[in-house]
Amino acid sequence: MDRVDLNADVGESVGVHRYGDDEGVMPFITSASIACGFHAGDPGVMRATVALARAHGVTVGAHPGLPDLVGFGRREMQVSPREVEDLVAYQVGALAGIAAGQGVRLAHVKPHGALYNMAARDRALADAVVQGIRAVDEKLVVFGLSNSKLIDAALQAGLAAASEAFADRGYTADGRLAPRGLPGAVMSSAEDVMVRAVEMVRLKRVLAIDGSVVTLAVDTLCLHGDTPGAAELARLVRGGLEAAGILVAGPSRTGQ
Amino acid sequence: MDRVDLNADVGESVGVHRYGDDEGVMPFITSASIACGFHAGDPGVMRATVALARAHGVTVGAHPGLPDLVGFGRREMQVSPREVEDLVAYQVGALAGIAAGQGVRLAHVKPHGALYNMAARDRALADAVVQGIRAVDEKLVVFGLSNSKLIDAALQAGLAAASEAFADRGYTADGRLAPRGLPGAVMSSAEDVMVRAVEMVRLKRVLAIDGSVVTLAVDTLCLHGDTPGAAELARLVRGGLEAAGILVAGPSRTGQ
Amino acid sequence: MDRVDLNADVGESVGVHRYGDDEGVMPFITSASIACGFHAGDPGVMRATVALARAHGVTVGAHPGLPDLVGFGRREMQVSPREVEDLVAYQVGALAGIAAGQGVRLAHVKPHGALYNMAARDRALADAVVQGIRAVDEKLVVFGLSNSKLIDAALQAGLAAASEAFADRGYTADGRLAPRGLPGAVMSSAEDVMVRAVEMVRLKRVLAIDGSVVTLAVDTLCLHGDTPGAAELARLVRGGLEAAGILVAGPSRTGQ
Amino acid sequence: MDRVDLNADVGESVGVHRYGDDEGVMPFITSASIACGFHAGDPGVMRATVALARAHGVTVGAHPGLPDLVGFGRREMQVSPREVEDLVAYQVGALAGIAAGQGVRLAHVKPHGALYNMAARDRALADAVVQGIRAVDEKLVVFGLSNSKLIDAALQAGLAAASEAFADRGYTADGRLAPRGLPGAVMSSAEDVMVRAVEMVRLKRVLAIDGSVVTLAVDTLCLHGDTPGAAELARLVRGGLEAAGILVAGPSRTGQ
Repeated sequence: MDRVDLNADVGESVGVHRYGDDEGVMPFITSASIACGFHAGDPGVMRATVALARAHGVTVGAHPGLPDLVGFGRREMQVSPREVEDLVAYQVGALAGIAAGQGVRLAHVKPHGALYNMAARDRALADAVVQGIRAVDEKLVVFGLSNSKLIDAALQAGLAAASEAFADRGYTADGRLAPRGLPGAVMSSAEDVMVRAVEMVRLKRVLAIDGSVVTLAVDTLCLHGDTPGAAELARLVRGGLEAAGILVAGPSRTGQ
Repeated sequence: MDRVDLNADVGESVGVHRYGDDEGVMPFITSASIACGFHAGDPGVMRATVALARAHGVTVGAHPGLPDLVGFGRREMQVSPREVEDLVAYQVGALAGIAAGQGVRLAHVKPHGALYNMAARDRALADAVVQGIRAVDEKLVVFGLSNSKLIDAALQAGLAAASEAFADRGYTADGRLAPRGLPGAVMSSAEDVMVRAVEMVRLKRVLAIDGSVVTLAVDTLCLHGDTPGAAELARLVRGGLEAAGILVAGPSRTGQ
Repeated sequence: MDRVDLNADVGESVGVHRYGDDEGVMPFITSASIACGFHAGDPGVMRATVALARAHGVTVGAHPGLPDLVGFGRREMQVSPREVEDLVAYQVGALAGIAAGQGVRLAHVKPHGALYNMAARDRALADAVVQGIRAVDEKLVVFGLSNSKLIDAALQAGLAAASEAFADRGYTADGRLAPRGLPGAVMSSAEDVMVRAVEMVRLKRVLAIDGSVVTLAVDTLCLHGDTPGAAELARLVRGGLEAAGILVAGPSRTGQ
Repeated sequence: MDRVDLNADVGESVGVHRYGDDEGVMPFITSASIACGFHAGDPGVMRATVALARAHGVTVGAHPGLPDLVGFGRREMQVSPREVEDLVAYQVGALAGIAAGQGVRLAHVKPHGALYNMAARDRALADAVVQGIRAVDEKLVVFGLSNSKLIDAALQAGLAAASEAFADRGYTADGRLAPRGLPGAVMSSAEDVMVRAVEMVRLKRVLAIDGSVVTLAVDTLCLHGDTPGAAELARLVRGGLEAAGILVAGPSRTGQ
């Protein structure tokens, strides 16, 4: 039986500044990646989001990002591996502390935005992310882009890794996410996303925007919680996966 | 045999902005309270400071503060107990994550600056600090001003508490630190500080600035690392305590 | 003919974090108070908000706040008059720089949140706010709570002042805003707010929550842009004022 | 008669975190570039630094940087031209506001750290820096690396530009600063720096680290205030320049 995890990036509000529909998507996902205060989130939002995930039986992970609130962690920064390791350990530890207060243990870590992309293509930074995670807890599962350097780094360091795919994003022929702006880079139809999700999990491949076929490990699918209709899309995708006989549950592990 | 812990607030640098003489005082203290990034410190400084403490066999604790870098956490803020609990858990967790990477487990938590003072006199905030600490690890020892609400709150919650005294600061008749600016609020002579330290530990009392006698539990003495001659003062105080036959080691526990 | 200014606090988004319905309220107001990056806002949001105000012919002012993004500038902080003067001058200057690039000159300054409240009741802080404003441009009009210390401070310093009233908030017998939470502290009916706005401008008085009558100068009325239905409320209030024969235009000046 | 400006980057302290020897170098420089709160500096430090410069008759300019306090603005960030324009206008305006309170008008703007380097080699970012400066005041002189894109951008936009050279840094054959770490990238002898300063101003050229000759416009020389012996070096260089018959005064203008 095919199996996949559904994850969403949540807890991205900051104080009075609400962001994303966490309440809407939480009923449909199985893993929640919670922002840790550097690119989004704050201690109160983190605590409330852990509570929300816990109430829905959703597994909790950390979503550390670059220290750039105004840029939402999406602007690449010239950070050293040492700096990356430290800022990952800091943020993962901070969420672990908040979660422990509710009896929740973190299950995974997924870097956010520019950090995610940098760790996908740069092995030294990927190793640094993995070391920062391992510093806190070597049982944490590393979420990374399927076929990325981050997955390689996690596996080589002996950590469990879950390969992530995006059903609402176009891919290039080499397996990267097509930059927003290119035709086909973002799927706009919820039905298309649903069909694509099923196809990805079933066939472990995706059609790139140039028509070529890209092979993917798919342990977890990312749903965006900050797009209009996010909750409805989450409901659709989950329903579609289950209707196709796919088990939606916590992540399987790449390479195991 | 009398016994006391010597602690200092360290890790208060931020990036290129150095602060305090951590290398100078570390050889003479037995507990290090490390800033956690809100009022001072950053992930790299935290990691380096844990390493420094570890190299000297000094016990590591967290020193969480209010989110106010420009004010160095010394400006009181109208924070709610809920906010305090969350920001304490966040910061303690962050340092615990950084420290775990070096095989170091945190031993204590001491709130910084305005948060320390607020938790000394306001029981609701004291309870919040304790809950934030307990969230992360209920084995952590709570450092608080001797005779303060924070000590009461820790003991009532079943956490270990260490009563802190300041040999370089004047006290008011009711056992609080005399506000800087009052005559006698700050000791300027290193010899006076040393003598006072021995007296405090031996006699469990201190002469207030009005001449009255204040009774104190003294489990840990605070040495400031950010004053000129900090290292020399630390050397003197430690030497004086040991010459007086006092064991300088990790904190004893108030009320046990 | 009676006359009043309608102002709203705008530009409170931060990066991807949208806040308030600036586009919705801008057509109905005559003065915009733009956040300056300390409690909300960022350089890009400030620039876009100046452009929006300019496009609607709305006068632009600065809305400086305490350095507390997570608390949205609503948590009082123990800041000194010197610190207040500096942080006001900084923020007003920053917006003035952004606005100058669009040929817009700032017309007024209104402190935000906790800073507004502190400057209303504490004369030393009120003087500091005024000095910070005057540092940048002595032609700026100071917006402050009607009957507050801030109005006194502005007038004594020779700056123009505009007394602000809130048609959607209850008042205490001494002319302060009733703390949220008290019965009658917040008006929920748009029609009530509209009627109250007209009454305030016409009669220069308001019924306090204890039934007593409070006399008010009303040079500018504040409309909130961050409440549900903000745009509709703004439309209603403006329509009601004009239907009552009141000129809605830039602020008149208290004491002149 | 040859002429040159001596500038230093100052005002880089943040709250209790002191940085650099501003008091030491101020007597010897003719232009002060003051940090504006993004990579260093805070409103109080900015005000005090303007006052210090004013007391020494030193011309005041803004030193805007990337929003990265922990990295001291030295880590490149993937910022768009629009973002650069806005963050420059914001920071220049903020300092202009602070300075206006002391009757001081800004004379120049010099981007800091990574922003300086990015604007030296990327024309779009250089144009953005210039637009951000021009937004606030088109009379401001743009300080940029000699032979850089920033100088080109300023001149083409009709702003005055001053070409900056570094007597304590090695150059590559193409006129850039040699990356720290390369042999010859940093001069360690104060006497060498002094001789090199005189040579640069006299001959408008410098020997690159590969032995080739680089031609430079030299309107202003940068002295570092954050190195040990900064004040003594500043005294030496100024003395050397004057002994060589060079007028040390505000910057001349490139291309005029």
